[in-house]
Amino acid sequence: MKRIGMLTSGGDCQALNAAMRGVVKGLSNSLKELEVYGFFDGYKGLIYGNYRLLTAADFSGILTKGGTILGTSRQPFKQMRVPDENGVDKVEAMKHTYHKLNLDCLVILGGNGTQKTANLLREEGLNVIHLPKTIDNDIYGTDVTFGFQSAINIATDAIDCIHTTAASHNRIFIVEVMGHKVGWLTLYAGIAGGADIILIPEIPYSIDKVIEAVEKRSQAGKGFTILAVAEGAISREDAKLSKKEYKEKLKKREFPSVSYELAARIGERIGNEVRVTVPGHMQRGGSPCPYDRVLCTQLGAAAAKLILDNDYGYMVGMVNGNTQKVPLGEVAGKLKMVEPDSQIIDEAKAVGIRFGD
Amino acid sequence: MKRIGMLTSGGDCQALNAAMRGVVKGLSNSLKELEVYGFFDGYKGLIYGNYRLLTAADFSGILTKGGTILGTSRQPFKQMRVPDENGVDKVEAMKHTYHKLNLDCLVILGGNGTQKTANLLREEGLNVIHLPKTIDNDIYGTDVTFGFQSAINIATDAIDCIHTTAASHNRIFIVEVMGHKVGWLTLYAGIAGGADIILIPEIPYSIDKVIEAVEKRSQAGKGFTILAVAEGAISREDAKLSKKEYKEKLKKREFPSVSYELAARIGERIGNEVRVTVPGHMQRGGSPCPYDRVLCTQLGAAAAKLILDNDYGYMVGMVNGNTQKVPLGEVAGKLKMVEPDSQIIDEAKAVGIRFGD
Amino acid sequence: MKRIGMLTSGGDCQALNAAMRGVVKGLSNSLKELEVYGFFDGYKGLIYGNYRLLTAADFSGILTKGGTILGTSRQPFKQMRVPDENGVDKVEAMKHTYHKLNLDCLVILGGNGTQKTANLLREEGLNVIHLPKTIDNDIYGTDVTFGFQSAINIATDAIDCIHTTAASHNRIFIVEVMGHKVGWLTLYAGIAGGADIILIPEIPYSIDKVIEAVEKRSQAGKGFTILAVAEGAISREDAKLSKKEYKEKLKKREFPSVSYELAARIGERIGNEVRVTVPGHMQRGGSPCPYDRVLCTQLGAAAAKLILDNDYGYMVGMVNGNTQKVPLGEVAGKLKMVEPDSQIIDEAKAVGIRFGD
Amino acid sequence: MKRIGMLTSGGDCQALNAAMRGVVKGLSNSLKELEVYGFFDGYKGLIYGNYRLLTAADFSGILTKGGTILGTSRQPFKQMRVPDENGVDKVEAMKHTYHKLNLDCLVILGGNGTQKTANLLREEGLNVIHLPKTIDNDIYGTDVTFGFQSAINIATDAIDCIHTTAASHNRIFIVEVMGHKVGWLTLYAGIAGGADIILIPEIPYSIDKVIEAVEKRSQAGKGFTILAVAEGAISREDAKLSKKEYKEKLKKREFPSVSYELAARIGERIGNEVRVTVPGHMQRGGSPCPYDRVLCTQLGAAAAKLILDNDYGYMVGMVNGNTQKVPLGEVAGKLKMVEPDSQIIDEAKAVGIRFGD
Repeated sequence: MKRIGMLTSGGDCQALNAAMRGVVKGLSNSLKELEVYGFFDGYKGLIYGNYRLLTAADFSGILTKGGTILGTSRQPFKQMRVPDENGVDKVEAMKHTYHKLNLDCLVILGGNGTQKTANLLREEGLNVIHLPKTIDNDIYGTDVTFGFQSAINIATDAIDCIHTTAASHNRIFIVEVMGHKVGWLTLYAGIAGGADIILIPEIPYSIDKVIEAVEKRSQAGKGFTILAVAEGAISREDAKLSKKEYKEKLKKREFPSVSYELAARIGERIGNEVRVTVPGHMQRGGSPCPYDRVLCTQLGAAAAKLILDNDYGYMVGMVNGNTQKVPLGEVAGKLKMVEPDSQIIDEAKAVGIRFGD
Repeated sequence: MKRIGMLTSGGDCQALNAAMRGVVKGLSNSLKELEVYGFFDGYKGLIYGNYRLLTAADFSGILTKGGTILGTSRQPFKQMRVPDENGVDKVEAMKHTYHKLNLDCLVILGGNGTQKTANLLREEGLNVIHLPKTIDNDIYGTDVTFGFQSAINIATDAIDCIHTTAASHNRIFIVEVMGHKVGWLTLYAGIAGGADIILIPEIPYSIDKVIEAVEKRSQAGKGFTILAVAEGAISREDAKLSKKEYKEKLKKREFPSVSYELAARIGERIGNEVRVTVPGHMQRGGSPCPYDRVLCTQLGAAAAKLILDNDYGYMVGMVNGNTQKVPLGEVAGKLKMVEPDSQIIDEAKAVGIRFGD
Repeated sequence: MKRIGMLTSGGDCQALNAAMRGVVKGLSNSLKELEVYGFFDGYKGLIYGNYRLLTAADFSGILTKGGTILGTSRQPFKQMRVPDENGVDKVEAMKHTYHKLNLDCLVILGGNGTQKTANLLREEGLNVIHLPKTIDNDIYGTDVTFGFQSAINIATDAIDCIHTTAASHNRIFIVEVMGHKVGWLTLYAGIAGGADIILIPEIPYSIDKVIEAVEKRSQAGKGFTILAVAEGAISREDAKLSKKEYKEKLKKREFPSVSYELAARIGERIGNEVRVTVPGHMQRGGSPCPYDRVLCTQLGAAAAKLILDNDYGYMVGMVNGNTQKVPLGEVAGKLKMVEPDSQIIDEAKAVGIRFGD
Repeated sequence: MKRIGMLTSGGDCQALNAAMRGVVKGLSNSLKELEVYGFFDGYKGLIYGNYRLLTAADFSGILTKGGTILGTSRQPFKQMRVPDENGVDKVEAMKHTYHKLNLDCLVILGGNGTQKTANLLREEGLNVIHLPKTIDNDIYGTDVTFGFQSAINIATDAIDCIHTTAASHNRIFIVEVMGHKVGWLTLYAGIAGGADIILIPEIPYSIDKVIEAVEKRSQAGKGFTILAVAEGAISREDAKLSKKEYKEKLKKREFPSVSYELAARIGERIGNEVRVTVPGHMQRGGSPCPYDRVLCTQLGAAAAKLILDNDYGYMVGMVNGNTQKVPLGEVAGKLKMVEPDSQIIDEAKAVGIRFGD
């Protein structure tokens, strides 16, 4: 007999349901008795005791279903120690819910922020297992996160669509790809979509180098150019600012995002309009791709095994092709970024992709 | 023996290549001798004599290929009678190219503006056949244009993706769909995607009605709302302005598009952030859907038949399930708009979709 | 207040759920009180009183969901008047269930066979509305059935995939498309997929003509050939047999389907192996395409309107772009086949497609 | 200056073009002078001197294109040492072509058999680089082959489509997945598609266990069952036969494939018809998925680097997330099979999937 709680927190992504299904199938396949409590809207549900006992029917047919059957919300880690507007101590409230329901374990699906709170709960004595969800692929300790490959597919599809129209019109196009802090998604979608220039937060760009690359293509008789630009792409000058200074600068900016600004700056210098496409939240949505479904089935099964073994306090990651338990204390708070001198960047450069550096 | 010229003009869309393939297959299948001249970048190629003799190889494998192998450009009809910066009379230049190459006919693929110029050339004594290309579906005299169904698929896919994330986060989302003057694409994608509110240029909206609709959903316990909004959606007040006044107003607007403005206005009143997704030019791109491929094969074959019959001066349309020749003089300059009291609008309203009216 | 029953019968297809959602949304939007009884597994549920009162939740999120939430089964019209193994009179049993539940109307979704039974129930005094479901597009009185366009997409996708492998290997490929009696699906998917030869039941083929067409392509230097072949494609000789004789012949055939036999016969004569691909039931499955979702929303809304008007005894079809009520008595029992001399066949031939005739 | 030859051999698959583009972009980006000779139809082109000097235009726009621009053919390794019907010594002929063109290196894309011949050419003194292509994922020395993920997507899509129809009809369905010797594709597509039973060559099945699993689902109230069955799935009894005996047995079999036989045997015992779907060669076709495009860009760049370094005799594989050179002599002739007691099999079993063992 096990009694587990489950929640999804942070921005939603594909395969959250697939992962929960994996955990529950993994448990119910071995246990005669199992109670699964689903907390609604992320940590909120745990704090305010908003939950429901889930049944097998809840997990039927959700392998391919996008979004999360539990709902989610963003609950910044920074505010977990700050009482809410009614003076409720959130951490104590979560512990209270956990103990009231007599849970054996909390299965928590989310990204970096979610992981930090999961680790906090672990430090507070709760049994937790964390599953690494994010289209950003920036979670330390796992080779890949779920949602990442599905998001690559959508972002690449956007670049593919833009490709035909860019070529027909001899135009310069920017496709803005999600990713404020890290460039994994932009890097992979950019390579997959055949982007000519890829700009990511980890490699601050020189606007002169970017324009030079555009012009070189034009001189080589290539009529169109596609730039895959991460939301968090940053120029060399801005990268020298302090975090606070940069935030201030962004607030004053007249453009809705970095891509629009870049488009204006390139367009001005080149003398041609540069178009911008922003697939935006589409990248988190829709049915998970087969890769993510297999990944989540494996991660879910591995999580179930840990629970059956009463072995708690881990993220379950995928390392060198195998699922692996990773102590939460070792990875919480760390960010996995693209290394500017990594093999994949070298290889992208070798086939002619420019990064503005 | 026939000698034909071919060009694609205006914004590109899916199935332009499929349509050209249809014409050429239809001709080469019946003729021993055939010369096809492809003019590059729309009417530009015809004006400045920029063309290439095309071969069978050019038309191989392009049924499924997005964009246009000839390139395209926007050449506003208004400026056709205005000499270019070097004093070149464009209409005379086009006639000159036509006669120099001793063409039997020009096959012109494009939307409304393109059609007007095609009609002008007809009036100037050239043999022309026009094929109705546009994702906007706004060409008078045909039930459907090619590109429309492919664009619906992409716009619907965008709404589908947003659906899962909207539901997971209980959010209000606007998906901005292409269409400055007409709402066909927004209407069909909106219905197909299960949008709750659809705003199109033909039905000016009342912001109060829109907000009321959003709130009603919220009161009914539906956590999220999706609005499909055409680029050219317009409020009742703005619809009362003269064209010139409205243009002036738009110029001063601080938002990049109507969706962002709407999002701000709704968000302010509702007290919740409203997210915007702009698939943009993606909607013109990628491989044509099977519907458009069949449509273009039929239109192309019908165009070829007219050419074999030396019967010129038509658009080839699809009317009640059959291809049909439609005199260019009868349709050029007319716009096919969504009728606010048409059956499909009534039916959309009947299933609960709101139009802000 | 209305009390309606609903069932889906015959082979399942895409957009059944979308159509039921359309009906229910159309009714619940106008009625304060509405009871919808869903009968399980087609007419079986009506015969044996196997049903459930459906709620709004049942219709939420099903616009994009393949299959049918009610289940379905094949109940041949021929056997409706034959008592079951326990001596139950099926027609009387259906009437009994109908009256016991005090229904205002039955909404019946299905193909030709289903329609005949619906008409029988109408003749027996029940109020019925029929919605034309089938990937075969063979229902008389409507320009298009739902499921058809979604199935075209899947069958075309199959041909597209085969195209690249056929071209790489210089091979002859047969793609077997669903359709025992009619060739609509094969015709449209064949044209959309760029098939070189299309064989459908309505145009019996000469094996010599087929082989000649294959050889002509080879002589013209085209290394590969793709045949789109309907399940019910038939040779000229076999078409001369009586129905009974042909059935007998099929039983003795050593091949699992016509495609395998054709592959053997062509391969023998050409001296090269001919490969066969059978997407089969895939063609009925998966999420409905946007076209079908709009179609079903319209058909559903129109059906709801008839119910609100107490106007029964119709199929709701799509005729020349508008939904339309069609008296069941006028269409039941009729089959809509491809006309061998119709415009689309002429156009397909004009672009070089061969039909083996 | 480099002069390289390139060929694709064996069954085609997705991303062959993407891989060749990667190599050529990687070389041309570093070299002022480069000559690339493309041999047609696999080793045949090399043997008989059938080739063409390729230009930059050949590699433009092929990142997303299925198939292979060079064509391919199956040239069994066993027969490489056997003279052809005109007495031509194939190995000598290949060496002759290589030396006549004064090549620096041969880039060979193919699967296991292709790799063995590549190794033979290496032993004969030619400079070769091999890139691991196959949807089977059975190449030793690399974690993944290209084509594998694209094929998973297609096979999973087939299972997804079957899912809705199986559920609607309460049917048992077999989806036959490609793979005669290994079960990787079936395993991954099966897990991704939510198959209930997966049969692969590496885990011989007991028909009793399979039927038991089907019946258990039925007893648990689950109306339908989906089996993902590899082409090379084998029963325990057959697995005991010698290779020769089994081949003989297969020849006498009245069924076109293992799936049809299995369907008959299960159907007989269960008393219900079991349906079979065979996506077949579709699984090799169509545009490569983003995963494969990135993989091939990386492998291609890595191959180019080796060529620039004059470092020959390797397969370029992907090992633990990095491209890596692997000596051909160490891997040629080895097959990478699914281990019956590997982690992924354990995890699949843990979530309730049955393997018939």
